[in-house]
Amino acid sequence: MEVWVPPLIPVPDVPGTLARMTSLRLVQTVTAGVDPYRPYMPDGATLCNARGVHDAGTAEWAVGAMIAVLREFPEFTDAQRRGEWTYRHTAVLADSTVLIVGHGSIGAALERRLEGFEVEVVRVARTAREGVHGLAELPALLPRADVVVLLVPSTPETAGMVDAAFLGRMRDGAVLVNAARGSVVDTDALIAELKTGRLRAALDVTAPEPLPAGHPLWSAPGVLITPHVAGSTPASGRRMLRLIRAQLSRYLAGEELANVITESY
Amino acid sequence: MEVWVPPLIPVPDVPGTLARMTSLRLVQTVTAGVDPYRPYMPDGATLCNARGVHDAGTAEWAVGAMIAVLREFPEFTDAQRRGEWTYRHTAVLADSTVLIVGHGSIGAALERRLEGFEVEVVRVARTAREGVHGLAELPALLPRADVVVLLVPSTPETAGMVDAAFLGRMRDGAVLVNAARGSVVDTDALIAELKTGRLRAALDVTAPEPLPAGHPLWSAPGVLITPHVAGSTPASGRRMLRLIRAQLSRYLAGEELANVITESY
Repeated sequence: MEVWVPPLIPVPDVPGTLARMTSLRLVQTVTAGVDPYRPYMPDGATLCNARGVHDAGTAEWAVGAMIAVLREFPEFTDAQRRGEWTYRHTAVLADSTVLIVGHGSIGAALERRLEGFEVEVVRVARTAREGVHGLAELPALLPRADVVVLLVPSTPETAGMVDAAFLGRMRDGAVLVNAARGSVVDTDALIAELKTGRLRAALDVTAPEPLPAGHPLWSAPGVLITPHVAGSTPASGRRMLRLIRAQLSRYLAGEELANVITESY
Repeated sequence: MEVWVPPLIPVPDVPGTLARMTSLRLVQTVTAGVDPYRPYMPDGATLCNARGVHDAGTAEWAVGAMIAVLREFPEFTDAQRRGEWTYRHTAVLADSTVLIVGHGSIGAALERRLEGFEVEVVRVARTAREGVHGLAELPALLPRADVVVLLVPSTPETAGMVDAAFLGRMRDGAVLVNAARGSVVDTDALIAELKTGRLRAALDVTAPEPLPAGHPLWSAPGVLITPHVAGSTPASGRRMLRLIRAQLSRYLAGEELANVITESY
């Protein structure tokens, strides 16, 4: 086998499996993470990840989730279940400042989607670059944001990054959107802010995850919780197939591959 | 008084009020509709409406509502209230075809917002023009759409336009989004389709409206109902102030006014 697309859940013996593929030239994962494969890649084979495949689904979840919370869709759903017409004015996304924390490919996809919404987008990433603030500026930027979207990877550095101090710097009425990992947010600190009604949130990920029955986050006010579904749509499968097809074409034509993690050596 | 910005709810005696304003030159309404004023405008005065003021709020509601229904936010809110983590795959907006029925300024605002979402937008309006299909083509276009957004004005022509035949031409799994007027949709026909689970819907307007307690639409499956709130946000007030300020500047400078309904004569 020259090309291997390993299944979503790694096979039991990845090193042994790789070692048996004596003519292997390309491993194309279906995930962004490549940790199960990287240490065992044989000489002459290239490792490529699925960067970008989940971007469309996750970025659109984030836009939908921020609008849902600002426009009070969960509260209107509750009123609908009660059969009550509860007309009132709500907040709005238009004219607001959206702070994107973590600016990889999902952040870029989110920004493209926000372009038509009459909002100001502010970007923060680990390393400052043209148009992107560095993490050191985050404390000064938080009070300016109406919506804060978390898209950082799960690393020791980002664990618990959104703590009481982070939340405390957020503006009254602001919305925290977590499309990253549950571990990035201090759940107790968030619950405390939600309970005062000062902040609202949309969470596709939680800590702990799955959130157990009876956990106080379920019943905190002003939070929309979805069960880690942001990337779980047919859009990912379609983009995965598109990526595999394009990689195979490149491979057969001897062209440069996309999403390369470790070059052939 | 040279300039009059009448209140949202018309004063009791509009003709008499207008007749008493002997130096009136400009009436700037805070609504899109101008019917209470148009027949009584005195010679030499210009009538301008508030076209565009509610566009941002309404267009963003439509995007949020279509994502909410496709991504099952109401169902996840129900699961949240029960304290249940109900992971599953959902539909997605990406790669879909969005048919916008009625293409005035809100339609254009919606289209700007959809630009980054990797969707195909198809436009239908009463009169065909460059890039916009005419109403006669609607039956042929409906089966192609994953999302159908209603933005037509309430006229005798559009009353009951979305009937069983219209809904029957919609694709399985498609979403109807009504940000126009409740009278445009045959409520009984919609409920019949919702009950089969073939179609879903997001409605900011209903017929009857307000929807009374116990009405079967409240409990139909797969529908998100919000109580005519799409335009009821601070964005409208801010745009209204901006419009009035700009109109006054134009008036004082003797420049051409915007949103003119009846020219001075």
